[in-house]
Amino acid sequence: MYPTKIRFILGSSLDKAGQGRCIPEESIGRQMKKQHYDFGLVGLGVMGRNFILNVADNNFAAAGLDVSQEQVDTLIAEGGNPDRVNATTQASEFVSSLKQPRRIMMLVPAGKIVDQVIANLLPLLRPGDLLIDGGNSYYTDTDRREAELKEKGILYLGAGVSGGAEGARKGPSIMPGGSPEAYPLIQPVFEAAAAKFEGEPCVAYMGKKSAGNYVKMVHNGIEYALMQMLTEMYDLMKKSSNATNLEMSERFSEWNTGRLQSFLVEITADILQQKDPLEEGFLIDRILDKAKQKGTGKWTSQNAMDLGIPVPTIDMAVTMRGLSGLKALREELMPNTTALSPKISIKRT
Amino acid sequence: MYPTKIRFILGSSLDKAGQGRCIPEESIGRQMKKQHYDFGLVGLGVMGRNFILNVADNNFAAAGLDVSQEQVDTLIAEGGNPDRVNATTQASEFVSSLKQPRRIMMLVPAGKIVDQVIANLLPLLRPGDLLIDGGNSYYTDTDRREAELKEKGILYLGAGVSGGAEGARKGPSIMPGGSPEAYPLIQPVFEAAAAKFEGEPCVAYMGKKSAGNYVKMVHNGIEYALMQMLTEMYDLMKKSSNATNLEMSERFSEWNTGRLQSFLVEITADILQQKDPLEEGFLIDRILDKAKQKGTGKWTSQNAMDLGIPVPTIDMAVTMRGLSGLKALREELMPNTTALSPKISIKRT
Repeated sequence: MYPTKIRFILGSSLDKAGQGRCIPEESIGRQMKKQHYDFGLVGLGVMGRNFILNVADNNFAAAGLDVSQEQVDTLIAEGGNPDRVNATTQASEFVSSLKQPRRIMMLVPAGKIVDQVIANLLPLLRPGDLLIDGGNSYYTDTDRREAELKEKGILYLGAGVSGGAEGARKGPSIMPGGSPEAYPLIQPVFEAAAAKFEGEPCVAYMGKKSAGNYVKMVHNGIEYALMQMLTEMYDLMKKSSNATNLEMSERFSEWNTGRLQSFLVEITADILQQKDPLEEGFLIDRILDKAKQKGTGKWTSQNAMDLGIPVPTIDMAVTMRGLSGLKALREELMPNTTALSPKISIKRT
Repeated sequence: MYPTKIRFILGSSLDKAGQGRCIPEESIGRQMKKQHYDFGLVGLGVMGRNFILNVADNNFAAAGLDVSQEQVDTLIAEGGNPDRVNATTQASEFVSSLKQPRRIMMLVPAGKIVDQVIANLLPLLRPGDLLIDGGNSYYTDTDRREAELKEKGILYLGAGVSGGAEGARKGPSIMPGGSPEAYPLIQPVFEAAAAKFEGEPCVAYMGKKSAGNYVKMVHNGIEYALMQMLTEMYDLMKKSSNATNLEMSERFSEWNTGRLQSFLVEITADILQQKDPLEEGFLIDRILDKAKQKGTGKWTSQNAMDLGIPVPTIDMAVTMRGLSGLKALREELMPNTTALSPKISIKRT
C-alpha cells in the first residue's frame, strides 16, 4: 500500500546521519512516556486502530506507529487518554515507549512491507523482544522471517487475525504460531482481546514456525468456499424464481435460525436488505459483479494440490473469483446473459 | 527413480581419485569412436531408447549414456550398427565420443536427478556445448539451470517431448525453449525426429528461458482435462445405461470419425476392447480405480491461479486424481457405492 512512504519515514527516523537534523517540534507529535506501554502496534489502518483500542479497553497501555500523522491523530483522539493509548510517526519514539521485553504487533499488508517494517525496527530492538505479524503473510515468508530473527535473538510469531474491522474492535479470532517460548509473552493480551465463545477466548497457540499463518490461510480458504455457496444460493433464487431482495433476505434470516446459523449467513441477510444510500433501490443491485482475491484462498487450493488433498469447493471458489474478475471478457463472450439464465423452478415452502 | 545409482556410477567415472583403479575391461563396454556421434542422449529408458533410435533413423549418428549396462546393451542390440548407434555407462567415454560442439539431451526423471546429471557432465563439457532437458522439469528449475550454465558458457534448452514411448520412436511433438542461439544447433535433429503434420515437423522454438517446459506443462494440463472428460463419459454410459465395454468402445470409435477425432479418443476405444491376458473378461474391469498424478497438471492449475486465469476443467481433473488416489478413504465413506450410482437414463441414438 505505501511501501515507499513507510520506508522513507521509518527509515529516516533510524538514519544516524540524520539524527542531527533540525526536526520541527510539531512534526514529532506528542512526546510519549518511555517504557510505559504494554503493547505496540505498527500500522494504524482501520484493522490496526480497532485492534489497539480493543487491547487498551482490556487494560493494556498501548502504543501505535504509523507513517501517517493523520492516522496517529485519529487514534489518539479516539483513545481519549494518552497514558492508555498513544501513537507516533517516529519508530524510535515508539520503540522507546514500550516496556521490555517489547511486544510489537504488525498489521500491515503482507509482502515486502512486512520485511521493510522488520528491517526498520530491528536496529531499535533488543534480544528477547517479540515481533508479531498479524497479517495474512504467506507461510514460507513467516518461516524465513522467524529463522532470520531467531539468529538475532528476536522472538517471532505469525498470528492470523480473523473477524474483519468489527472483529478487531470487539473481539477477533486469533491464530498465533511460532517460537513456543514467544507465545506466553503475548498470551494475556491476546486472550483479553479475543472474541469469547462460551466464556473461552478464541485464541490458541497453533504450533511452531508458520502454523498460525497456515491455519489462517486454510480458514480463509474455507471462507472462500462458503461465500461461493452463498452467492450460488442467491443466483439460484434470483434467476429461478425471480425472488426479490427482501424475499431472499427473509430466506437467509430463516436459515440463520437453524443449523446453518453463522456470521456469513447473517450478514448475507443484512446485505440483501441494504438500501442504496444514493438513489432508489437496493445496494446489492448496484454492486459491480467483479470480485478480487487477496491470495489466501488461492494458496489453500495450491497447497492442497501439493499435498494431494482434494478441496474442489475451494478450487471452484478461487476459479469463480477469477472468472468474476474477467468481466469484460465475460460480457464479450455472453452479450445477452439473461438469455442464458437457467429456467429452473424451485418450490417455495 | 535411481538417484543413488546414477550419482554413483556417473560420479565414479568422473572421480579423479578413482581414475587409477583397475576397471575390468568388460565393464567399460565396447570402445566408442571419438568425436564421431552427432547427438548424445542420457537416460536409456523406454523413452530415451526410442528417441535415440528415432534420431539414428534420421541419419544422425547417436550415442547413449545410462547407469545400467543392461539398458546400454539393449540399445546397442536394437541399433544394429555401432557406428550409427552406440552407448556406454561411462560419462567420459560418452562425452568424448560426441562431435563438438556437443549436443546432449537428457531424458531422466525431473527433479534432483537432472541436477546430478548436469553436475556430473559439466566438468567434461566445453563452452559452446549444448545441454537439453527433455523431461517435464518445473519451469523455474529450468530458468535456474539455464542461468547457472550460461555463466560457464554452456547452452541450455528445456524441451518438452510429447507422445509417450511410441511417439518418441515414431515421431514426438517437441517444445524447445531456452537460449535463442542454442536452438539452431539442435534444430535439424529435432525437425527430422519430430512427428509431421501435413508435411510440417511438430517442433518449434517456444521462446526464451523455460518457455518450452511451460508450454509442455500447459499441454499436459489440457491432457488431464481431456482424460477426465473421457472417464466421465465412460462413467456416465456405464452407470446410466449399463453399456457393455464393446458398446462403449463402439461409441468412442464412432466419435473418433468426426469432430472429436483425437489420439485420446482413439486409444479409449482400443482400451475398452482389450481382453484381460490372464483370465476371462476385459482388462478395463481389472484396473484399480486409483490414479496418480506426476505434477504437470497440478502445476498448470497452480500457475493459472497465480495468473488469475480460470481453468476449472483442469482444476477438477487434478482434484479428481487426488480423490481417486484416496481409495481407502472413499471406500470407508461410501461402503455401498453402487447404491449411490446416478439413476439417469440417456437415449441411445
